[in-house]
Amino acid sequence: MPARVNVVLLGLGVIGSGVARALQGRAEIYSQRIGAPLLLRRILERRLDRAQAAGVDPALLTADAKEALSGDVDIVIELLGGEHPAYDLIKDSLTQGRYVVTANKEVMAKHGPELLALAAKNGVDILYEASVGGGIPIISPLKRDLCANEISSVRAIINGTTNYILTRMSRDGLDFDAALAQAQDLGYAEADPTNDIDGHDAAYKVAILASLAFRTPVRIEDVHREGIRGLAARDFRYARELGYAIKLLAVARREDSSVQVRVHATLVPEDELLAKVDGALNAVEIEGDLTGKVLFQGAGAGSLPTSSAIMADVLDAARALVLGTRPFPWRYTADLAVTPLAQLVTRYYIRLEVADQPGVLAGIARAFGDHQVSIATVIQKETDEAAQTAELVIMTHQAQEEAVQATLAQVRELPQVVSVVNFLRVDG
Amino acid sequence: MPARVNVVLLGLGVIGSGVARALQGRAEIYSQRIGAPLLLRRILERRLDRAQAAGVDPALLTADAKEALSGDVDIVIELLGGEHPAYDLIKDSLTQGRYVVTANKEVMAKHGPELLALAAKNGVDILYEASVGGGIPIISPLKRDLCANEISSVRAIINGTTNYILTRMSRDGLDFDAALAQAQDLGYAEADPTNDIDGHDAAYKVAILASLAFRTPVRIEDVHREGIRGLAARDFRYARELGYAIKLLAVARREDSSVQVRVHATLVPEDELLAKVDGALNAVEIEGDLTGKVLFQGAGAGSLPTSSAIMADVLDAARALVLGTRPFPWRYTADLAVTPLAQLVTRYYIRLEVADQPGVLAGIARAFGDHQVSIATVIQKETDEAAQTAELVIMTHQAQEEAVQATLAQVRELPQVVSVVNFLRVDG
Repeated sequence: MPARVNVVLLGLGVIGSGVARALQGRAEIYSQRIGAPLLLRRILERRLDRAQAAGVDPALLTADAKEALSGDVDIVIELLGGEHPAYDLIKDSLTQGRYVVTANKEVMAKHGPELLALAAKNGVDILYEASVGGGIPIISPLKRDLCANEISSVRAIINGTTNYILTRMSRDGLDFDAALAQAQDLGYAEADPTNDIDGHDAAYKVAILASLAFRTPVRIEDVHREGIRGLAARDFRYARELGYAIKLLAVARREDSSVQVRVHATLVPEDELLAKVDGALNAVEIEGDLTGKVLFQGAGAGSLPTSSAIMADVLDAARALVLGTRPFPWRYTADLAVTPLAQLVTRYYIRLEVADQPGVLAGIARAFGDHQVSIATVIQKETDEAAQTAELVIMTHQAQEEAVQATLAQVRELPQVVSVVNFLRVDG
Repeated sequence: MPARVNVVLLGLGVIGSGVARALQGRAEIYSQRIGAPLLLRRILERRLDRAQAAGVDPALLTADAKEALSGDVDIVIELLGGEHPAYDLIKDSLTQGRYVVTANKEVMAKHGPELLALAAKNGVDILYEASVGGGIPIISPLKRDLCANEISSVRAIINGTTNYILTRMSRDGLDFDAALAQAQDLGYAEADPTNDIDGHDAAYKVAILASLAFRTPVRIEDVHREGIRGLAARDFRYARELGYAIKLLAVARREDSSVQVRVHATLVPEDELLAKVDGALNAVEIEGDLTGKVLFQGAGAGSLPTSSAIMADVLDAARALVLGTRPFPWRYTADLAVTPLAQLVTRYYIRLEVADQPGVLAGIARAFGDHQVSIATVIQKETDEAAQTAELVIMTHQAQEEAVQATLAQVRELPQVVSVVNFLRVDG
């Protein structure tokens, strides 16, 4: 049993400050819970002015990674974000037999299998509860609580920024640009929102969840990714009329020996709990063959919720150190193929701008029929009299993505069709 | 590292059969996950005919507890239910240094602190994820994932039978007896439904959750318990008109150095997620100072979901055995006082049957005023012309339970008041 557990923090940004506060403000409680003193030894941070804001002794800060990681270090908390130098520092730390706790979704999505193997080889662990879903326990439930199940699907709202924007578009009838601007004003979206808006963040997270759920390495390149820039307020109105909400859904499904992993704006039936997860909240639904559907919901971001996840991992690592045990190594047990999106079978929502003249629908319907894509509902409502165009919304029955894409290619060639404005998949 | 992990199952009822099936049908997968063969050695069960239904070798069954637990046993799965002999067998098993996995909420609610201490003393653990919330991970998240938080409240729908009945009453306008009869027909309620209907089951479960959340022993006697027999279909109509759903809510709240733990029919604001948890589903909402509100939802009962929780615990114990480690002992760190219900401050829903004559409301309003209980809303609608009585529904502003009870005592004495038909607390 170590006399104390020495922790080094890499990065004193918003999350890092929350962690530093928890580590110092609750030192006594945490030490009591793990049975040994838990000590914040050093902080890697260039901006020395951040010490005061975080309420830590400025003497703990150093801008030199080597210095930060020198000497007696048991647990390294990596909160630098981004791929480099985070990846390199994590690798070095694991190689030196230190536990690593990280919130870094990019590093875990890109290098998870390698880092997990490296941790196991060195008798330690890399813990990353904070990389997905902020303060919602989801990594640990997948690794431990649901481990007796064969998991068939993960469906998740795991980007708070886009969920906030979509909620504003749906509730207040805002268009995308207005909702984004408001999200930026309120601090829900960054000045450069690309990472959230275009689904990169959600793609990293679902790659991590899918890897755990199916015990197979899922690479970030395996994730089909689309963002939410193409949505308009009217899409939400049409969706509601059809009985759906629109969410940026991350979906990972297993079918036999293959998986499909995707992130895109999705129509979710209104009576599903995921359809009711609004604002900046996150939610993850896991379906296992024993437990059925289990839903985890809560704050998916923010300094305090993320600190909750990080400190849970830190205390877990600290308990292992105090007990002097090795962690049980995580094992990938499968190497599943990734099904291309062309093989997806679901229902589709298609919004078209067409010439407002007789016979238009007949031509479009023929294109659908030619590809065996069956139409379930047609809505024709909004007409632009000046431009002599009309808007047509089509919901299909179950169809294969490939056939729907071929249909749309044919539809685009029709002289009466001005454009295929939007195309969304249904899930649920 | 043991050559294999030997498991004994106590009880081959509905849950036990599910566990036996999982243990045998997935022996290879589970052995792979824990790194050693996992073997079902013996089953304690009087009814030998149950072997066939569960698909196990009848030779594994014995009606003799001593025989079942003799020899090399690493993990004992207790699924007998009820206090005795379950408690005694668990105690013996822990004393002999065996891990115990149990779904027994009664034993854990009544003897949890003693059994946890006994397990720690013997270097093993007693795991009870299946005792609350069926297949929803909730015990382990409280012990591990939320352990960096100071938890302020647990609010839960943890009895599927009553939630099914209340959902039918709310959706279909059924009265209690009709909804109960349907629940019994469909197997959601037992022939003798007392344990569920009167809140005993939920009280055991919330005592377990509160003990973990606040790290203080909460005894079953500390839980204020009321059932749902007094509810009528019209209560749901009035509640809806006021913006609420009615749920059998288990609530545990910490305030400074005391806790309040209660189970009763409760008005929950319609826009809360807990209000939308319908049918036989369970949901638990935990509020921590770091993570905020986190919600866990899923199937709260049933053979397969409960097997998921039991097998997660079994695999956890098996991993510890394979690694040769001692579990980190759970520690109670507080001994909090229990606040009497009289000190509760919330809003109240009161339904009265009164004489249909002038001046009635004035007398009732005076009684409320006398005790400083402020009325927020009054609904007077349904009138029984034959009996010359009317129905009055009153919602109060925030008030103390003690004052409301004193008010109702005074109201009952009013000559124009036929009866105080119902009295419900609001939460949220």
